[in-house]
Parts: sequence; C-alpha cells; structure tokens
Amino acid sequence: MKQYQFPLSMRQLIAEFSKLPAIGEKSATRLAYHVINGQKEEAQRLATAILAAKEKVCVCEVCFGLAEEKVCPICSDLNRDRQTICVVEKPADLIAIERSGGFNGLYHVLHGLWSPLRGIGPEETKISELLKRIRQSFENVDLKLALPKVEELIIATSTTVEGDATALYIAKNVAQFGIKVSRIAQGLPKGGELEYSDQGTITHALNGRSRINS
Amino acid sequence: MKQYQFPLSMRQLIAEFSKLPAIGEKSATRLAYHVINGQKEEAQRLATAILAAKEKVCVCEVCFGLAEEKVCPICSDLNRDRQTICVVEKPADLIAIERSGGFNGLYHVLHGLWSPLRGIGPEETKISELLKRIRQSFENVDLKLALPKVEELIIATSTTVEGDATALYIAKNVAQFGIKVSRIAQGLPKGGELEYSDQGTITHALNGRSRINS
Repeated sequence: MKQYQFPLSMRQLIAEFSKLPAIGEKSATRLAYHVINGQKEEAQRLATAILAAKEKVCVCEVCFGLAEEKVCPICSDLNRDRQTICVVEKPADLIAIERSGGFNGLYHVLHGLWSPLRGIGPEETKISELLKRIRQSFENVDLKLALPKVEELIIATSTTVEGDATALYIAKNVAQFGIKVSRIAQGLPKGGELEYSDQGTITHALNGRSRINS
Repeated sequence: MKQYQFPLSMRQLIAEFSKLPAIGEKSATRLAYHVINGQKEEAQRLATAILAAKEKVCVCEVCFGLAEEKVCPICSDLNRDRQTICVVEKPADLIAIERSGGFNGLYHVLHGLWSPLRGIGPEETKISELLKRIRQSFENVDLKLALPKVEELIIATSTTVEGDATALYIAKNVAQFGIKVSRIAQGLPKGGELEYSDQGTITHALNGRSRINS
C-alpha cells in the first residue's frame, strides 16, 4: 500500500524551513502552512526580504557591525565619542547597547570569542582587527574616517568564561598603548532579587559595590 | 543622541519573519542572522521554495487535501478503498494517518471544525462539501473520478469539544443515507501509563474496552 506525503513543493519548503536554527520539522510544517494559506503578496514579501537582506547586508570595514555601506552609520557619525570603543561579541549585542541609550562611542564587533578549548583563536574572530585598529589609531590617525587615538576600550563581552578570557586577552595585548581598558559591571540585574541570584552574581555584586553616601 | 538600529534590509527581514506563526522578534532576528551569515545559494533556495510552494500548492477539488493537481494522488489512486472516507480537520492530520499506514480509503479535509461558540458554521469549513460529496455519490456516481457510493465515514477529528460536535453534526446530516459513521477510538495512547492519564481518557478507555479472550 502506497503511503502519500505532502505535495513535492510543500515538502521542499518544509525542508528549507527545517534548515533554519531552532526550527524542527513540526515548526517547519507550520511555517509552510502559513505560507500556503496566506496571501501571495505575503509570500513574495518574505522571499524578497530574504534575498534583499542577503544581497545588501555586509559588515562595516571599521567596526564589523552589520551595515549596508562600506562604513556603517555609527562609524560615520561625527557626533559620537570617537575615542571610546565598546567591544562586543555579536551584532545583536551592539544593537542591545544602542537601545539602552547608555553609550555614545564607537563599537568593535568580534564575531566570536577567544576559546582555546573549542579551538577558536584570535584569528577566527575580529580580535586581531581590533588590535590592528588600535595600533593604527596610534601610528597613523585615519583622517578620512576621523578616527583619532583610542582612549578607552570598554569590553562588553558576555560574563562567561570565554567572554572573560577574551577581555583579558585584549587587555594584555593593548597594554603597550597605555589606554584605559574596562569591563562592563557584573551584579544583580535591574529589579533582580538577592534570594534568587546565584553565588557568582552575588559575589560580583558585593565586590563591585559603590558608595551611595558622600 | 541618535540610537542606531540594524540596517534597513535586515529590519525588513526581521519584520517579515516575525509575521510567521510562533516566531517572535528574537527568533526572527536569529533567523535573519542565519540568512545573512549563510551562503547566497541557501537564501536563494529558501526564497525559491517559498514562492514555488505558494504558486503550486492548491487543494484537491474532491477531498480538499493539499495537492499540486486538480485531483490529488490519493483521490486518483484506484487501488484504494473508494467507499470509505476518513474525515480530518487539517491536511497535516491526513499526512499523520497516511504515515501510520493504518488506512487505505479516501479522505475529506474539513479545514476547520464546527464551532458555534466561535461563530464558525459548517459553511466556513468543508463540512457542506462533504455532505454534498456523499449526496452526489448516491444520486449520481461520478464515473470519471471513479467515486462509488460512500459506505463508511470514519470521523477522525480531534477528541475535543469541537471535534466531537463536528462528528455529531456530520453523523446527523448523513443519517438519511444509511451509511456507517464511526469515530476513531479514544483511550490510552500506545505506551501510555494509567497513573498519568486524565479522567476523561480513562473513562473512554474503560467504556471502549475490547475483549481479548474468546
């Protein structure tokens, strides 16, 4: 007895959706239904958006953040503090900091963390490019890009073993330039409850305490 | 101070992915990253599959299952039992039954259930088309499609209030034809443990018991 399946084009769409991260076969089937049941224009908009994003989005040649230009709008913005660089792991981290509104300098996106255990060295990430960028800012100020000497490096990688190792690696390798290197604070999140915080967080919160009287 | 966002084409892709079911902004962002970081060919395959499925997949004019032809391969298969129709809610239910290998008849996909509470009448689903299909099989056998008189209707809608109501509605409306109407069995799932089964399931399992000695 022959067992029937979905039509071929439906199966192909399910297979393509299944290749996306965190999309299993069931989710892929649900997505495929949505496409098939929806308007033709919706399917076209989705297909066009996929092709357009893949075509247009590249990385900024200065900070390696996502951009549609050679140099991204942040690196081109002359109103920002161009002597402070915030170092992040992923483009999404850059956007998260932008949304917080708490930073007005430039960025450097590493696209990975230094992880000897997983065999990921500085060359696999943009750590080498960061070191080069800092060195160049001292040797030879890039007037076209208005990139003056770097004064401070804020390392905003995750507070994981790899994030910490990357921070230390960078700090060690820029020591010769005498610039300030800082690490984002670790402590309780806003609204966090002491009772439910883990030991590492509490230890960091205690050690990083700040005075509130004068 | 200006806060920057993702490049426009990336934001547009995130917005399109966010329209898909069960995909929030965070998941959509992860999917967009995947597209941007992947090969150009992958993005093209995904876009093409979306357009092809939307273009080609339609519903079978006999059973309303998904098809790429006017009449689906199941309805065209003369080796199947053409006098038994299994009634399901969604195309995915049809595929689930096919995969079980336990049924060799034809199908009818309702694309919804009768739900007076949610204002969904028989006209919003393919219930009316099922009744018409059965009526026609008695009045005027469709020789071209080789659809003889319907002898049995197996109602395989979900065992929910709406699934049960739909089953009763159909049974009532085909009473005049004197065909067998059955409902799929309710009981413990294969490998199910009594201890963790709900009361409704246990009641149905007891009432639907079958003899194992002669």
